[in-house]
Order: sequence, then C-alpha cells, then structure tokens
Amino acid sequence: MVNDRLWWEREDLCYREGRLHFGGHDLASFVTEEGTPKFVYRAARVRDNLERLRAALASQGVEHDAFYAIKANRHEPLVAYLKLLGRCGIDACSPGEIRHARQAGFEESEISYTGTSVSESDLDCLERHPGVHINCDSLSMIRRLGRRCPGRRIGIRVNTGLGAGYNDKLRYAGHKATKFGIYRDRFEEAIATAREADLRVETLHFHVGSGYLGDALDALEQVLERIGALLDTHPEIRRLNIGGGIGVRLVESDVAIDLDRWAALIARHMSRRGVRVQVEPGDYLIKDAGVLLVCVNTVEDKGGTRFVGVDAGFNIQNLAAHYQTPFIVAPLRRVGGAALERVTIAGNINEALDLLAEDVELPALAEGDLLALLNVGGYGAASSSNHCMRGEFREYLLLDEG
Amino acid sequence: MVNDRLWWEREDLCYREGRLHFGGHDLASFVTEEGTPKFVYRAARVRDNLERLRAALASQGVEHDAFYAIKANRHEPLVAYLKLLGRCGIDACSPGEIRHARQAGFEESEISYTGTSVSESDLDCLERHPGVHINCDSLSMIRRLGRRCPGRRIGIRVNTGLGAGYNDKLRYAGHKATKFGIYRDRFEEAIATAREADLRVETLHFHVGSGYLGDALDALEQVLERIGALLDTHPEIRRLNIGGGIGVRLVESDVAIDLDRWAALIARHMSRRGVRVQVEPGDYLIKDAGVLLVCVNTVEDKGGTRFVGVDAGFNIQNLAAHYQTPFIVAPLRRVGGAALERVTIAGNINEALDLLAEDVELPALAEGDLLALLNVGGYGAASSSNHCMRGEFREYLLLDEG
Repeated sequence: MVNDRLWWEREDLCYREGRLHFGGHDLASFVTEEGTPKFVYRAARVRDNLERLRAALASQGVEHDAFYAIKANRHEPLVAYLKLLGRCGIDACSPGEIRHARQAGFEESEISYTGTSVSESDLDCLERHPGVHINCDSLSMIRRLGRRCPGRRIGIRVNTGLGAGYNDKLRYAGHKATKFGIYRDRFEEAIATAREADLRVETLHFHVGSGYLGDALDALEQVLERIGALLDTHPEIRRLNIGGGIGVRLVESDVAIDLDRWAALIARHMSRRGVRVQVEPGDYLIKDAGVLLVCVNTVEDKGGTRFVGVDAGFNIQNLAAHYQTPFIVAPLRRVGGAALERVTIAGNINEALDLLAEDVELPALAEGDLLALLNVGGYGAASSSNHCMRGEFREYLLLDEG
Repeated sequence: MVNDRLWWEREDLCYREGRLHFGGHDLASFVTEEGTPKFVYRAARVRDNLERLRAALASQGVEHDAFYAIKANRHEPLVAYLKLLGRCGIDACSPGEIRHARQAGFEESEISYTGTSVSESDLDCLERHPGVHINCDSLSMIRRLGRRCPGRRIGIRVNTGLGAGYNDKLRYAGHKATKFGIYRDRFEEAIATAREADLRVETLHFHVGSGYLGDALDALEQVLERIGALLDTHPEIRRLNIGGGIGVRLVESDVAIDLDRWAALIARHMSRRGVRVQVEPGDYLIKDAGVLLVCVNTVEDKGGTRFVGVDAGFNIQNLAAHYQTPFIVAPLRRVGGAALERVTIAGNINEALDLLAEDVELPALAEGDLLALLNVGGYGAASSSNHCMRGEFREYLLLDEG
C-alpha cells in the first residue's frame, strides 16, 4: 500500500519512507513548539505553475502577459517572491490590493485592476495611481472614472453570458445574470460612454469563473467566438484579458485541462487578429502549491460516522464547506499495510457545516496524528476570519530551488 | 406608501418623516467623514431580547440562567454592556472567547464553555480556568479532561438526532450525523467514562440548530422528551442547557416563535423534574439589534437584472450568501409615492455569490443613496474576513435608554 503512489503524489509532494515531503522538506518538521494550524507554500511550485501556463501560450505563439490574482493569496513573502521572479504583474480588485502590491515593489504599470461595485473611495485610489491599468465592469464606472481621469486608457469587462467553473457557485456568467461585466446588449453603449467620457478603450476583459477543467474548453471556445465578434467590430482594441479560473484536479476522476489545447484555442481566435492576450491566474498558481498542517485531537464515532476532529476550521479555509470543492487529506506519516477507514474530518468551529473533508478513505488515525490538507493554497489565509476566535495560524513560504 | 408601516418596522426601528431611525437616532447621522460600511448595534434592543426570553421562562416558573453566545458578536463595548447589565453570563466555544469575556469583566463562574474538536492546547486553557463550566461534546474530551482535572464538575452535550433551524445547513442534528455531542447510543458510555475519569456530570446540554421558529416547537418537544428520558435515568443531573438557536422573522411570511408556548414546553418537561434550565441565546439577542449601513455606488441593468452595487460584501456579513437567510434592505431615506422596483443588492467582492439581497422590492435607488441591511447583528463582524482586502468597517453601540 505505502509503496504505491497515490494519484495526487508528484515529485515535490510525496511520501518518502512513509513521511510526507514537500519540496524536499519533511512536513512534520514544520510542526514546532507553536503547533498547528500552519499553511506551507512552495514558491517553486507557484513558479512552475506560472511557467507551465506561459509556456503553453508561448508554444502557440500567443503574445501575452500574466497577472497574478492576488486575492487568492496575499502572503507578503509570496508577493515579494513573485516581484523578484519578474514573470508576472498583479491583478488587483480593491484599493487595498493595489497598495499591497505596491508595498512589495510592483510598479503601477505592472498592476491591472478589475473591481466590482466600485465606490467613489475606490476611484479616489485609482485616480491617485495613474499608471495602474483599469478594467471597468459597468457603465457607471466608465462614467465616473471619466469625470476624474479624462484621457485614461481603460479596458471593458464583458459578460458573454457563458460561465465555467468547479460548480455552479463558481461560474461567473451563465443563465442567471451576474453582477460582473457589461453584457453584450450594452457593449456599444459602453463604448459610446467611454468615448463621451474621453476614455480610450484598449482592452476587453472576460472571466468565466473559478476552476474550469478539461470539459470546459468548449464553453471557452464559445466565449472566444463571442468576444472575437466584438473585437472585429472594434479593431482599435488590441488586448484581450481572459481572466483566470483554470482549475486543478481535486479528485482522481477530474479531467485535467489540456493546456496545449487551451492555448491553441486562444491562438486560433486571437493571434490572427493580432490581439495581445492577458491572463490572470490566481488560485491556479497557488492552490496546489499550498498545504495546511493540522493536528488530530479527536477520533470518535458519532451517529454512524467516524469523525476526526482537528485544530482548524472552515474559518481559515472555507472552500470545502461553502463551495463543496473537496480537499485531499494526507497523513504526514503513512505506514505500510494500514487498513483504510472512511472518516469525516471535522473542524473546531461550532457550526454543523464545519467539515474539512467528508467521507474520505484514510489509514486509521489516532489523536495526536498530523494531517496535511492539499489544494488549500488559495482562498485560505486570504479569506480567513476569526470566527469563534479560532482564527490563528501561521504561514510559511518554502524557497527551495526545486 | 410612506405612511404605511412596513412589516418589520417597530418602535425603535422605523421611519420618521421618511428617515430611518434606530433607537431615536437618524441612522444617516452615523455616516460621517469615514463613510460606510458601518454596523450599528442598539444595546437596549439586546437587553429587551434577553428580558423577553427570561420573562417567558419566569412566567412559567422555570428556574433558569442565560449565557450570551459570544460567537455571534464579540464587539467589546457590547460585551462590557452585558457584564454591567448583569442579566447573563457568557457561552464561549474557544479559549479566545473565554479570554475575551474575562477581559470584559466576566468571572469564570459566569462562563460556560461548549466547544468541539477540542485540542490539547484548548484543554490547557480550560485547566487554567477552573471556575469555567465545561460541557464535553465527546468521549475523547471527557477522557482527556479527566486526566487533567479530576474532580471537576462537567456537562455532557447530547445529540438527540433531531435538529431545527432556518434551513438544513443550520440544523445541528438530524438524519445526517453531525460532529456535535454524544449520541444517545453512547450516552451511558459517556457517563461511565466520566465516572472513571473522576468527573461529576451535573449538566446535560443540547442544541438543535440556528434559527428555529414557530414551526419547530414540535421538534423541540420531541427533543425534550428524549432528554427527559435520559434525565430520568440519571436523577443526579440537575441542570439542562438547551443551547441557543431561537430565530427571528426574516421575511414577512415567517411565523415568529411563541415564547410562551416555548417556555411552557420547557416547564412541562423540566420543572416537574426539578431541573434548572440554562439557555444560550446569541444571534437571537443581537441579530435584530444590529444594522449595517452601506452606500450605493452603482445602479445598473445587467442581463435583465437591476443590480445595485454597494460598498460592502459578503466578507463582512456572509449569512445571505452562504446560508440563504435573507436580509431586509431599508433605504435610509424613503419618500412618499415612490414607485417600487425589483433589484438585487450586489457587494464589492469579486465572487458571483457576493449578493447581499436578491430580487427585493425597493423604491428606485440612485448612486450615492444610503441603505441599511437589517438582521445583520450576529455573525457579521464576528466572522468577517479581509477577503479581497475589503474587510474594513466600523462598529457603533447605541446606548440610548429606549
């Protein structure tokens, strides 16, 4: 059993002699006197994820820029690392994120802003950062920005009415109207509004959702067709930002996205038009580059379910509880021949839905055992709360060369 | 139109000459130079909610104590107010909450602790607060506490397998097994474990869920019958903690709970047994005692829906987005004769489900208008995050006498 690699193991995240290693480090070595919970991120994996995306685009001859969607994870050492790496800018969605990126050394020209429900106070910030690129997601924002910053170059976020993502909650367009972007029926009105406001539209932006996999490429193609039609009527627009949202496999049966096919699709629709492409990967860069270390404190059968209680809750990583996107659970030590049990990993928050993993198969666990949750690097710490005053954790960035 | 009272208006929260007042204050007066979002809580309403509950129990002759479930809202001035009021203790679920209550002046003897997935580090804290009452929610916790604190008096949290709440997500017991408490099939084992560990069981505890209304009293009665049977076999247990979870009307069609019937039910099952009752209202005390002030920044039709964008998001009040429990939306100014429109209130977080109210009927709104969201006092600030770095807000406590 222990000699068989699990489906999710990879060179930088695997068992060695029964101990889970990440970037060459025995993860148990991070559980020091301060204990758990603790996020551990690996910079080289973030880099590899970024380069994989860029290489796919480059191999198809797609001229492009990448912006890291900082809302996924704003851990300061990570942001500093990305600045030093020099292979991406920052996608920001609020004044706080612009300031956060600037504090790590990113220039205004390396920051692209795409926000929603933008307030006057948000516009104060945007006005004072004239070098930041802004994508407007409403006619209202175009009008109000124009009053403040005539002459500025902008993008328009378009909602094509098609979405894709891990599940319905994570699709940002679709049958039900969403708050994002300008629908095609008002696109010409948006162009006219920008012209009247003396803003120059040079970018289109769209974003289909969070976590699209291999089976979503058809939907993406339809979106690109619709966007292509808009670009054809506005040849002055020379850039297309295709947002983020590429997913990773969460369970063995997930079909990974074929990045070459993805890039070929983009090339087919955009390269012949001479349009430069921008991508905004966030979760895709950090999701599988982060693990969360927790300690088992309770193993008990309740109502026919074996609950494994741990010292962290959905307040520090809410994706499983709120979006039903499962984490992988990996004991830090795995001995050969252990029988498997079906268990539910329960957090320490006093809410029934505070379950970190439901009905998963693991070797028998004991109180005091350490576990890693995988695919937790994004939207964990960044959207954590102090609910029940259980919001404490630490974050480590591994800088092995990998 | 404006002269007709809306269904949710009450003496301390109503329009006066078209301006929304709360405890005699024009709510617009709280929107100063620092703007919005801003929570405003009213202490006298919290007090009234507490006294209503206590009066219902007292009128039925139920000997009782109340503990405020501090996880609902830990705003320090509010906690200090409750200590000075002297009519309730604190229900804590983590070491942080015990410390928070102590910092506001609550004595250990006024604190009841009921946690889940309790760690050794949590037990360190409980051991150092010998006067805090502890309800154990697992056999594991009984064993581990006994090793540290022999002779201590404890409660046992029981899971009767029956739940009630605003909806399925908020029921803490039911067909699906939950992590909470000890099921009846292991109750005798729990009693025996406590005896072996030299702990004295003097309290039973149960909690059906969050937000039960009038139609849940039958379920509550069944729970009390099951608990009564346990108490009959253990006459040495002299206290019953019935948790919190009473809901308030969120929409006009909700049937409010009849507190007299509720109290009579408790009296019928417990008074004849001579059992002292404890209640743990949290959200019930603060929910309708808190409003959230936000400013409209965008009014725009998108895909057939009129979206009203505001300067707050589900990161500071997530109940509507994550639990589908609706807020009431009230413009701070309401003029007579205004036509009504159906709108969706959208927050400023870059996630599709960041909607604060869907498809609600309101007078036509304009950018710059101020709105109050009602029934937001609990699980707003207390479980807020800095997601998208949009986590800033202020909290005000009104101390009008009311």
